[in-house]
Amino acid sequence: MSSKEEAPSVHFLVDAARKHEMWIIGGSIPEIVPASSSDKDSTIFNTCLCISPSGEIVAKHRKVHLFDIDVPGKITFRESDTLSGGSTISTFDAPFGKIGVGICYDIRFPEQAQCMIERGCKILVYPGAFNLTTGPAHWELLQRARAVDGQCFVLTASPARSDPPAEDSKTSYPHYSAWGHSTAVSPWGEVIATCDEKENMVLADLDMSLADEMRKSIPTTLQKRSDLYVMSDLTRK
Amino acid sequence: MSSKEEAPSVHFLVDAARKHEMWIIGGSIPEIVPASSSDKDSTIFNTCLCISPSGEIVAKHRKVHLFDIDVPGKITFRESDTLSGGSTISTFDAPFGKIGVGICYDIRFPEQAQCMIERGCKILVYPGAFNLTTGPAHWELLQRARAVDGQCFVLTASPARSDPPAEDSKTSYPHYSAWGHSTAVSPWGEVIATCDEKENMVLADLDMSLADEMRKSIPTTLQKRSDLYVMSDLTRK
Repeated sequence: MSSKEEAPSVHFLVDAARKHEMWIIGGSIPEIVPASSSDKDSTIFNTCLCISPSGEIVAKHRKVHLFDIDVPGKITFRESDTLSGGSTISTFDAPFGKIGVGICYDIRFPEQAQCMIERGCKILVYPGAFNLTTGPAHWELLQRARAVDGQCFVLTASPARSDPPAEDSKTSYPHYSAWGHSTAVSPWGEVIATCDEKENMVLADLDMSLADEMRKSIPTTLQKRSDLYVMSDLTRK
Repeated sequence: MSSKEEAPSVHFLVDAARKHEMWIIGGSIPEIVPASSSDKDSTIFNTCLCISPSGEIVAKHRKVHLFDIDVPGKITFRESDTLSGGSTISTFDAPFGKIGVGICYDIRFPEQAQCMIERGCKILVYPGAFNLTTGPAHWELLQRARAVDGQCFVLTASPARSDPPAEDSKTSYPHYSAWGHSTAVSPWGEVIATCDEKENMVLADLDMSLADEMRKSIPTTLQKRSDLYVMSDLTRK
């Protein structure tokens, strides 16, 4: 989408939220921000739009941790060759609770999740596309870890897995095999809904009292030892 | 043990380390520190001694997060009625790598683990006795979470489970059913050795290059966004 938010994907998401009167956390899409002057390049972010039922963009999360990894013989990926990292910890209020948003690799950083929890989030949402190496090893584990540490729901949405292009295919863009497995995890760390790597719809009822209950029964949030360590959210006003 | 470290359990651990020329992280035991003046009560900590092969006590971790939980109808426990919390993040150097130590409930606090990782630990050890409610739900999950977040080995040692005393027993102390399941987890988050709830010996070879390898391939430690959040270890000199 352009910085003017006039791109078709933005219209599509806003229209869908309005039409169906629903909250949409719209996966993530590349966002091009034109250069401020002619001697500079434009900037591209990996961006997730959060839209209210009235069609208002209530949060725009730009992925803060770029996916630069090199697992020899398995997968090498350098997102920072193309993208820039965002500079906000992104949260917004919904009538059913405060929601925090990260994208994919962001889920590996407990500090970002803690910042969102400290702002009062009871749901963390991570659109993400783990791969066939890190997916089976860490995708569900990290969701359950963030849920139990934060005593919150964790919801993820992944693209389905597509087959690699045929060898005689004329496709020039690189193929990426996503792990899939969109999932919902409860504050107790239980997978309450999930799916496989195919196209799917994952539905879950979130009983928000479960977050309050766990926070009351195992009150880690109140038991932090702020005399020994402090987690500071530098973006908080 | 007394504050003079003359108690039999201290001697036992020190002698065993010396005799077998091994490093011992000696579970945890109550440590009584006499009051500094007659109008005060003595203090009791939940303490883990770390002893070198020469018999030197190289670290003494006093559990910092006290286990005060109330899961209605399942388990209620108030460690702070009896114990005081320690005030150190505890790490020590061994020839095979720096080791960090927490006790049981400490494992629920990613901040403490992060402090130990930032000091350079490649092994985190948590003696602990989770119960029959939190054990099956969270014991392994939290170990794997701390391992993948910190890209380090996580080792735990739990007491075996003992049967509740017979109803006509004259035992007056309360019974506690430990979950057991002492475990070793790799930096990739895999359980490399574990056991059930009975008396057991868990042995694991730790290939320390695995921690370096994971830190190199998925370099989250270098990718922290210190412009957005900062985790401060207030105990670090």
